[in-house]
Amino acid sequence: MKISELGEFGFIDAIKEDTLFNPDPVVIGIGDDGAVYKTSAGMEQVAVIDTMVENSHFIIHRTGDWYDVGYKAVASNLSDIAAMGGVPTHIVLSTAIAPDMEVDGLVSLYDGIKDICRSYHVNILGGDTVTSKEGMVITVAAFGEIEEGKAIRRSGARPGDIVAVSHTIGNSSGGLAVLLQNHDGYSQLKRAHRFPVPQVELGRLLVKYNCHSLNDISDGLASESNEIAKASDVRLVLKKEAIPVSDELKAWARESKTNVWKYVFNGGEDYELIFTMEPADFHALQAEYSDVTQIGVVRSGSGDVLLVDGDSESILAPTGWTHF
Amino acid sequence: MKISELGEFGFIDAIKEDTLFNPDPVVIGIGDDGAVYKTSAGMEQVAVIDTMVENSHFIIHRTGDWYDVGYKAVASNLSDIAAMGGVPTHIVLSTAIAPDMEVDGLVSLYDGIKDICRSYHVNILGGDTVTSKEGMVITVAAFGEIEEGKAIRRSGARPGDIVAVSHTIGNSSGGLAVLLQNHDGYSQLKRAHRFPVPQVELGRLLVKYNCHSLNDISDGLASESNEIAKASDVRLVLKKEAIPVSDELKAWARESKTNVWKYVFNGGEDYELIFTMEPADFHALQAEYSDVTQIGVVRSGSGDVLLVDGDSESILAPTGWTHF
Repeated sequence: MKISELGEFGFIDAIKEDTLFNPDPVVIGIGDDGAVYKTSAGMEQVAVIDTMVENSHFIIHRTGDWYDVGYKAVASNLSDIAAMGGVPTHIVLSTAIAPDMEVDGLVSLYDGIKDICRSYHVNILGGDTVTSKEGMVITVAAFGEIEEGKAIRRSGARPGDIVAVSHTIGNSSGGLAVLLQNHDGYSQLKRAHRFPVPQVELGRLLVKYNCHSLNDISDGLASESNEIAKASDVRLVLKKEAIPVSDELKAWARESKTNVWKYVFNGGEDYELIFTMEPADFHALQAEYSDVTQIGVVRSGSGDVLLVDGDSESILAPTGWTHF
Repeated sequence: MKISELGEFGFIDAIKEDTLFNPDPVVIGIGDDGAVYKTSAGMEQVAVIDTMVENSHFIIHRTGDWYDVGYKAVASNLSDIAAMGGVPTHIVLSTAIAPDMEVDGLVSLYDGIKDICRSYHVNILGGDTVTSKEGMVITVAAFGEIEEGKAIRRSGARPGDIVAVSHTIGNSSGGLAVLLQNHDGYSQLKRAHRFPVPQVELGRLLVKYNCHSLNDISDGLASESNEIAKASDVRLVLKKEAIPVSDELKAWARESKTNVWKYVFNGGEDYELIFTMEPADFHALQAEYSDVTQIGVVRSGSGDVLLVDGDSESILAPTGWTHF
């Protein structure tokens, strides 16, 4: 059945159940002009918004299925909240849908949205559905909370800080290349692209361990490290050989005769974290959460990133994914 | 200059100034992964989201200019907050932009956004900009506040209530017809379509005067009155001759040989309010805010709307603007 046959209200009826995964703060959920919710005493609110456009951010049945699109539209927002050190609490979302879209695909999209919201105990508070001329545009706005004064900016890096990242970098854009070539195997890379994991748990630990500056890696390590350097007015010195890269990504780079560093520095959508903090705090963090790796240090400077590769040094340009 | 020549970061630099029109509650505005803000003690939060799609919701230089699109994308959200009785406080927004869009148009769009935000003391906390394949899609998510337990649902209408609306109904869709025919005159109708006024002040008075149920009229009076009747499980009895219609809309209907009631019942985007409350409260409201008109009463029933037209009665079908 096409969405045009089901109609707007039929569609809302089909998806409005099973949307509150932490009902306590919700006063009014889906079904009125607006949703109403309570906030927690002593907490500040975090707000983010992110859009995915069909054939720009995803190609259906090639880079992922509708389920993945729903999952990822929420994941990118939760990652932005994690990148402030916050706990996500609610989303509202808007879908612009082509009239000939199959209802099955839409249901699958909402399954993806609901499953990640369930995992993170995030409520779906409401939404808007409109007609697009061609292809889907999905926008999610997410809210979260953080203890007063504790939000971690990208502008707080200080000389003497350690620079570190979570897990491994570059898997998502490696996975995208594998998917676009319809290549077998490389399941870790494909999974990293289709189901990135917002680092909410780590973000909370970074608040606990006095992290000075923090970004999520949505546009590649080159772009994100430069953002911290520029916002903090310091120099980040990164050691290339220290950057954690997965064996699968190395294998894919060998097989596809591509440069592994292209994925690491200029890829996107890893949704890992890059952060800076004092060495003692970093070691305390590592004792509690081992999947973090020092990749450099912060020096005084004026907003650039120096990449050290063996005996050679070069300025790392902020070349990441740009939208225009 | 095209947006593709300016680039994403150039664009953000061009619009990031002049975004906070009530800076006190804002901890972190545009420029980090997420925005951070404080909420007020004793208040609950209202969240809404709304999307406008080019050539579906607007046709540039025909139904309005870019400035109007920005204004209206915010206005429809503020209207949803007014329809809960809330005070709007912040927005985040996302624009999907065709690469060949002129930068002048984008600046004008943001001027419209900023001007209405300035009028209502609403902060622009952040946004996302992505590429669309064709045409613009703009999504605004707005937040607001309301005193604990005071949000006005659409489900609270009680037998014995008065049914009332604000100002006059149908001007916006009348104005759309005038604009689509590129007809001279009818400035009130055109203005109603291009610059609808979110009824925030009246929404606050409806909280003060114990309003029982409330909707904004975004999809026509037929649809919105039926929503209240259905959600409240009552019958709304509306007196056709009591519904306030502007002289300009009547004149346009005569000149264009169209049925004036089509605009009133089945038009959209008026963003006036329809509400129900006890007669004594309504009269107290009228003493403070005169631009409200009783159009009917609430009877016990099971979710429908009876339209009384002189001696004849008929059930008013919930036929409004639908998106599929």
